[in-house]
Amino acid sequence: MNEFRPTSPYPMLTVEEAWRRVAAALAPLPAQRLSIGEAVGLVLAEDVIAGVNMPPFPASAMDGYAVIASDAAAARRVVGEQSAGPERFLRVEPGTATRIMTGAPLPQGADAVVPVENTREEDGLVVIDGPVRPGAYVRPVGQDLKEGEPLLTRGSVLGAAEIGLLATVGHVRVAVHPRPVAAVMATGDELVPPDQTPGPGRIRDSNSDALMAAVALAGATPLHLGRVGDDRGALRRALLEGATRAHLVLTSGGVSMGTRDLIKPLLEELGTVHFGRLAAKPGKPMTFAMARGVPYFGLPGFPVSSLVMFELFVRPALRLLAGHAQLFRPEITVHLAHDVRHEPDRTEFQRAVVTEREGAHWAETTGVQASGRLKSLVGANALLRLPAGRGDFARGEGVRAILIDEHSSCLIAARGSAPRHATEAR
Amino acid sequence: MNEFRPTSPYPMLTVEEAWRRVAAALAPLPAQRLSIGEAVGLVLAEDVIAGVNMPPFPASAMDGYAVIASDAAAARRVVGEQSAGPERFLRVEPGTATRIMTGAPLPQGADAVVPVENTREEDGLVVIDGPVRPGAYVRPVGQDLKEGEPLLTRGSVLGAAEIGLLATVGHVRVAVHPRPVAAVMATGDELVPPDQTPGPGRIRDSNSDALMAAVALAGATPLHLGRVGDDRGALRRALLEGATRAHLVLTSGGVSMGTRDLIKPLLEELGTVHFGRLAAKPGKPMTFAMARGVPYFGLPGFPVSSLVMFELFVRPALRLLAGHAQLFRPEITVHLAHDVRHEPDRTEFQRAVVTEREGAHWAETTGVQASGRLKSLVGANALLRLPAGRGDFARGEGVRAILIDEHSSCLIAARGSAPRHATEAR
Repeated sequence: MNEFRPTSPYPMLTVEEAWRRVAAALAPLPAQRLSIGEAVGLVLAEDVIAGVNMPPFPASAMDGYAVIASDAAAARRVVGEQSAGPERFLRVEPGTATRIMTGAPLPQGADAVVPVENTREEDGLVVIDGPVRPGAYVRPVGQDLKEGEPLLTRGSVLGAAEIGLLATVGHVRVAVHPRPVAAVMATGDELVPPDQTPGPGRIRDSNSDALMAAVALAGATPLHLGRVGDDRGALRRALLEGATRAHLVLTSGGVSMGTRDLIKPLLEELGTVHFGRLAAKPGKPMTFAMARGVPYFGLPGFPVSSLVMFELFVRPALRLLAGHAQLFRPEITVHLAHDVRHEPDRTEFQRAVVTEREGAHWAETTGVQASGRLKSLVGANALLRLPAGRGDFARGEGVRAILIDEHSSCLIAARGSAPRHATEAR
Repeated sequence: MNEFRPTSPYPMLTVEEAWRRVAAALAPLPAQRLSIGEAVGLVLAEDVIAGVNMPPFPASAMDGYAVIASDAAAARRVVGEQSAGPERFLRVEPGTATRIMTGAPLPQGADAVVPVENTREEDGLVVIDGPVRPGAYVRPVGQDLKEGEPLLTRGSVLGAAEIGLLATVGHVRVAVHPRPVAAVMATGDELVPPDQTPGPGRIRDSNSDALMAAVALAGATPLHLGRVGDDRGALRRALLEGATRAHLVLTSGGVSMGTRDLIKPLLEELGTVHFGRLAAKPGKPMTFAMARGVPYFGLPGFPVSSLVMFELFVRPALRLLAGHAQLFRPEITVHLAHDVRHEPDRTEFQRAVVTEREGAHWAETTGVQASGRLKSLVGANALLRLPAGRGDFARGEGVRAILIDEHSSCLIAARGSAPRHATEAR
C-alpha cells in the first residue's frame, strides 16, 4: 500500500486568493491572424482604421430618379437607368433625369434623388411632386465611414456588426486572440465510458462529457484526452499530451488525500502547484498548477464539485486566455426564500433558482446539495455565495448570487430592474 | 427597362403583427437522436427517466477507513484497501477496518466511514478519534439519483449538468431538436467579395459575413449560398438550393421597390409571401415567405437594417426552430439621456448604449442612425423601441430597450437590480 497522508501539505486558500494566483499566472493567448469567418465571437488584438470611404461614391438612398434639384422643368426626360452595380457613367442635365436604384452611384450632374413614390413616369417623361432639396436622398461619400477614421479598437468582441465592418473595408484577415483549446481528462479506476454498463464498484464517467460541454459553452474548444486509470505512467503521458495539444488542461478526480491521489505529486514533478486546497464547499481539493507552460486545473471528482469549480475558476480562466476584459458572470444580491444551513468553516456555493417578485429577487435552493447530486444544478440559474465565518442563514436574509444561466438570469436581472428615480435626470 | 412600380402591393404591417405571422408559420424542427457530445446547447425533445441508482452501491464520501460504527475496539486491524474502482469484495468484522477511498464501494459488514483526518494508523492498526455514527460518510444507494425518477423533461436546454446526467445514466443518444441550418445569400450586381477591391459603382459585400456571424451567435449553423447578381435565373437556383440544404433561408437586398427587385415575385412563384412591408425604421422592405416548406426572410440590403431585422425576426425564428421556449431578448424600460428625433409614421429601432446610474437605466444613442452606418451598432448594447403614433422624445423620457449584447446587457440589468424591499419577506 502507498502512503496514506492524513493531512494535506497544501495551505487552505480562500476562493478570492486562489483566483488571484490563477490570474497572476495567466495572460491572453498571443494574437493570430484569422479570416473574419473564423473570428466570430473572438477578441480583437489590433486597432483597425477604415481604409476606405463608405459609400465610396455619392449613392442613392432610395429607388427613384436622379435629378438636378434646381431644375425648373415641369417634366424631365428619362435618359437612362443606373442600378446598384457597375457605374454606367450616365449624365443628368437640366430637363433630364435618370432612374436610379437604392445604393446606385449618382450620375454625373445630378445632385438629388426623388423617391419613386413622389413621381409619375409616362412616355419617357417623369413628373415630380413638390420641390426638391439639393442633396435629398443622396448618401455623400464617407457618410457612413470616413477613410482614416478609427473603425474598431483592440479588445472589442467581434459580433455580427464588427465582422460586417471588417468585411466592408476589406480587412478580411484580422488579428485576434485565438479560441482556447481545453483538454479534458477524467481519472479513476472506477470509470467506464458512458455507453457501457459498469460492473461492481464501477460507475459511468459523466465528468468528461459534462466538462467538455462546459468548455464549449464557455466559447472554447474541448479536446478529450480520455479516461485514465489510477496509474502514474498513464497519467503522466496524458498530462504531457494535454500540455502539447491544448492551451489549458482539466482533470477531474484524483486530487483528494487518499493513497491513489497521484495527480498532485505528478504536477509537482512537471511544474509548480500554485494551490492544492480551497476553503470552499464544494471544491476543497481544487488544484491549480502551471506545468510545461500550460495552466492545469485539477477539479474534484464529484460531478457537482467539478462543475462549480469550472464555473468559478476555469470559465474565467478561458475568458482571460481569449482576451476578454469581462471574465465573470453577473452577481446580484438576493433574498433567501427559506432557512439555509451553512457551516462557518468555508465559503459554500449552493445551487438555487432565483426569481423576481415585486422588484426583489428571491432564491430557492435546488433540494439536497450533495456534491454528487448533479440534479441540484439542473434548472439552477444561480450559485449562492454563503460566506465563511458565520453559520446558518434565515429566510429573508440577503446573500450574493452568481447568475450562471445566460438566458434566464439575464431576463430575471432585467425584469427586476425597471428604472426608478424617473425624475432624477443627471 | 422593367416595370418601375411606384407603390408596393404589400400592406404595411406592424412589427408585432408581422411576428405573429412568422410564429404561426413555424414549428420546432422534428426531433433527432444525437450523441450527447453533439447535443450541447440544444433543446431536449423527450422526457428522460433515471434508469439506474446513483450511487449504484453504498459508496464512501471520503478518504478514510470503513468500519462498523458500533464496534467498541480501541484499535482496529486494517484488513485491506478498497479504492474507487473494481469491487474487491473485502469484509469488515468487529475489530477490523479497511482503508477506503472517496467513491469506493463500502466493504461487506461496514456501515460507516471515518475520514483519514480523524485517525492514526500504525503497525497495521488504526485508532479512531471520537465516536462513529452509523451511516457516517456513506452515500447510500440512490442518494443522488433513484432508478425510475424523472431525470430531465422535454424542453430543457442541455447545459453541462444536463449532459453529465445523461452520461451518468448511460442515455448517450438523446432526442433533441437539431441545430437549425440557416442559408445566407447576398444579392445585387454591386457586390464584390470582401477580399476584392470594388470598381466604380461597386462595394464590398459585408452582409454575407455579418449575417453568417449573427447566425452562428444565435446558436445556428450558417451556410453561405454566395453572392448572387440581379438575375432572375440565378436567384431562383440559389433560393431552391437554400430550401434543399437549409432549414431557413436569408437574403439581403433585392426587396425594395425598384425595377431590379426580383425577389418578391420569385417568392410568390415558389411559395407564399406572408408579408412584404413593415412599419419599421429600419426595415420597411422586410419580407417573409414560406417557399418549398422552408421559411424565407428577405432582409433589407442596408447593413444596419439587415442586422436589426435579423435581431427582431430571424434570431427568434431560429430559436423557435430549435425548440426554445424563450425566443426573445430581455427588454427593460430606460430613460433617454438626450433628446431623440423620431417620425411618428412607424416604429423606430435606434441603437444605443444603456448604462446604469444610481438604480436607473439611461440610454445614449450611438451617433448618426443612418441605415448604412454599421458603426452605430458597434458598442451598442440595446435597440431602443420608439413607438409609432408620436413624434420626438425629450431627454428623461422612458422608452423600452431590447438588450442585444448577452454579456454586457446582462451585467447592466443585473447591476440595476439590487433588491429593494428587504423587509417585505413574503
